[in-house]
Amino acid sequence: MDINKGIKLWNRAKKIIPGGSQLLSKRSEMFLPEQWPSYYKKAKGVEIWDLDGNKYIDVNASIGACILGYADPDVNRAVKKAIDNGSNSTLNPPEEVELAELLCKLHSWAKMVRYARGGGEAMAVAVRIARAYSGKGKVAFCGYHGWQDWYLAANLANDKNLDGHLLPGLEPRGVPRELKGTAIPFHYNKIEELEKIVSQNKDIGVIVMEPLRHEEPKNNFLKQVRKIADKIGAVLIFDEVTIGWRLNIGGVHLKYGVNPDLAVFAKGISNGFPMAAIIGREKVMQAAQTSFISSSSWTERIGPAAALATIKKMIEKKVPQHLNKIGKFIIKGLKQVAENNNLKITVAGPPPLISFSFNYGEESQAIRTLFTQEMLKRGILISGGIYLTYSFKEKEAKRFLKAVAETFGLLKKAIDNNQVRWQLRGPIAHAGFKRLT
Amino acid sequence: MDINKGIKLWNRAKKIIPGGSQLLSKRSEMFLPEQWPSYYKKAKGVEIWDLDGNKYIDVNASIGACILGYADPDVNRAVKKAIDNGSNSTLNPPEEVELAELLCKLHSWAKMVRYARGGGEAMAVAVRIARAYSGKGKVAFCGYHGWQDWYLAANLANDKNLDGHLLPGLEPRGVPRELKGTAIPFHYNKIEELEKIVSQNKDIGVIVMEPLRHEEPKNNFLKQVRKIADKIGAVLIFDEVTIGWRLNIGGVHLKYGVNPDLAVFAKGISNGFPMAAIIGREKVMQAAQTSFISSSSWTERIGPAAALATIKKMIEKKVPQHLNKIGKFIIKGLKQVAENNNLKITVAGPPPLISFSFNYGEESQAIRTLFTQEMLKRGILISGGIYLTYSFKEKEAKRFLKAVAETFGLLKKAIDNNQVRWQLRGPIAHAGFKRLT
Repeated sequence: MDINKGIKLWNRAKKIIPGGSQLLSKRSEMFLPEQWPSYYKKAKGVEIWDLDGNKYIDVNASIGACILGYADPDVNRAVKKAIDNGSNSTLNPPEEVELAELLCKLHSWAKMVRYARGGGEAMAVAVRIARAYSGKGKVAFCGYHGWQDWYLAANLANDKNLDGHLLPGLEPRGVPRELKGTAIPFHYNKIEELEKIVSQNKDIGVIVMEPLRHEEPKNNFLKQVRKIADKIGAVLIFDEVTIGWRLNIGGVHLKYGVNPDLAVFAKGISNGFPMAAIIGREKVMQAAQTSFISSSSWTERIGPAAALATIKKMIEKKVPQHLNKIGKFIIKGLKQVAENNNLKITVAGPPPLISFSFNYGEESQAIRTLFTQEMLKRGILISGGIYLTYSFKEKEAKRFLKAVAETFGLLKKAIDNNQVRWQLRGPIAHAGFKRLT
Repeated sequence: MDINKGIKLWNRAKKIIPGGSQLLSKRSEMFLPEQWPSYYKKAKGVEIWDLDGNKYIDVNASIGACILGYADPDVNRAVKKAIDNGSNSTLNPPEEVELAELLCKLHSWAKMVRYARGGGEAMAVAVRIARAYSGKGKVAFCGYHGWQDWYLAANLANDKNLDGHLLPGLEPRGVPRELKGTAIPFHYNKIEELEKIVSQNKDIGVIVMEPLRHEEPKNNFLKQVRKIADKIGAVLIFDEVTIGWRLNIGGVHLKYGVNPDLAVFAKGISNGFPMAAIIGREKVMQAAQTSFISSSSWTERIGPAAALATIKKMIEKKVPQHLNKIGKFIIKGLKQVAENNNLKITVAGPPPLISFSFNYGEESQAIRTLFTQEMLKRGILISGGIYLTYSFKEKEAKRFLKAVAETFGLLKKAIDNNQVRWQLRGPIAHAGFKRLT
């Protein structure tokens, strides 16, 4: 397998783009330094062709963005129609009203909607609206919410605040020091941490969290958070950018019967076209009118056209049910194959977005890198987590598990013979945020 | 002319979208309350069709975003190819490296590039990088730079700070009070204001400005700003989102021979598809690697594909020369027609983005509204400023000026007979930021 073109272009990119890519999770050094194809020529369904013409089955779906699969024919048709009719004009696209009505219909507690074109950006809009409404600026948060100042401010007070939420050891360079203390983290399922935060800080106006990631809520965690928000008069924001639309149609909070004041969608909502939505209760959303929240790029037509087509197809094809079914099959298969090979791994759900790790202490990252290298040889592109898509059927799942079985067998031998590093044809993958030279 | 569908949908939108639109400059109440078509079905070249099938010639080009004209065939072809080949995947689009190389070739002082998908968002990225590099958080700024916290913070100290830069009387609700004093405004061509700011604030790390808007730099203003930035070790950012690519290929700073440390492009760069670029000197741009600046939506393929096609066409067709030529023709025509009708107006360039106003004191806004109403009747959509495009030729310019001549004649009579308000079929347009109910 020849992947010279991709590697060459990546080396050029690092000289002209600080960090190489626009997203840390698409940085080649995070997976397979000096061996990763890095760029694509074409992507269709579950397949990706790199610049050298190699074809792979991909199990990451662009960090979950392409929930229906790449270049979905129905979504692409809607987008191309929007383009033919002008994707932007001095007047507004009517699709944004239709989409707002659909989102409110699916989330009956929500009465108003605003848009942005990316998840991090949309979270900044939501926090602005929440702060404008509550009049209190401090934010208690849990989970990952993007790159913007309001969030990274957490690391100004303690450079470990974002460990476990974002990435270990991240410096908040360039975030105004004045924001120190304005964002305070709590951990999932640790209601006592949130209780302590609100008892020690009288000016918490906003509580932000991912309603679910890789852990189920215990002891009515979401309901307890809702209760605290109500008690202190804070706006509760659910960040559904990653988890939404995968376990059920709409936000995962619908499944748990706990409604936030604002919810934010992006990624899966538009199958990889830039789009994000902030939905909310009327009283809170109207606070958007007391602040200046306005951008040209939020008025183009592709975003709402893609979101409408994606959501309609997800409903029609019962996409979350498919993701869950295939996800369960994969989880079961991964565990089985690991057991067959006597390999120590941890697999975490929920089924539509699986994360798994090797449990070999300091050697784990080298083993992970060798796994990526050997899967790539077998035509499987596995970078971070496994995000399932509507295009990923049992046939692909079986092919994936077959490659895993071969690779796990090889890994086991390499581990037993102390040959993991020796078999690596490049450096070990980076485990976190690190400057590229 | 029947525009019932558009008006009806706008009334529905205001109930479900706070403020009605995602952009203040696409809010119907800013132009022609209760009479504006608000939504489009189709846009092509210089023409827009509303929901009722009325066809207009548009002179705003989506606030200047569609610099080649609507649904440009060459840009649309490139975008549709990107869509057919998958607009997003786990791997990166190679187009972003090609675009970075092109931008650096056109701006030889710049060596590195990052991307975002909107102007306001890109400005926040630029300010983050600049603060990370300089280590000093305070920003001195001039002009309009979007909706984000770093900028709106200016109004925390004095609610008139953004008057003349943004909009009069804007409340900075939801911007953390901790940011008070971190953004300090100076006015264009008032170098003494910037001198005063830097002498009174030792921690100015960033100077942000639009290198040009409707006023030419006097007394080497840009060079003087550059000198001050160098003296205090501040990062100089030129916001070229609105002005770039209209007077010449690339940033307008090239024309004036003054290079910033970072420059930001959006809007015109991709003919209405969401895209933004931050270009800069290597030393400064590398500071991006010391901060977490990362978003899924910045990795899709349409943005760079559209920007490459747009820039190549702008170069090939000498688009800025065309915009200048037609712009001069329009400015001359507007002045002539006003003189013929003895109407008091002020017209400001530069030719590619013309702004004009009626000089009748308190009555000006009513006259402006009547102008919009009567131009609409004549098939011309004129909202805010006049942004010229490559599709807008002498033929359209003549048709536009003919409609202006008729309307100016009508306005003059209405003014003389004190009948302006009487002839309005709806309320007077809002002059600034105002809550919609």
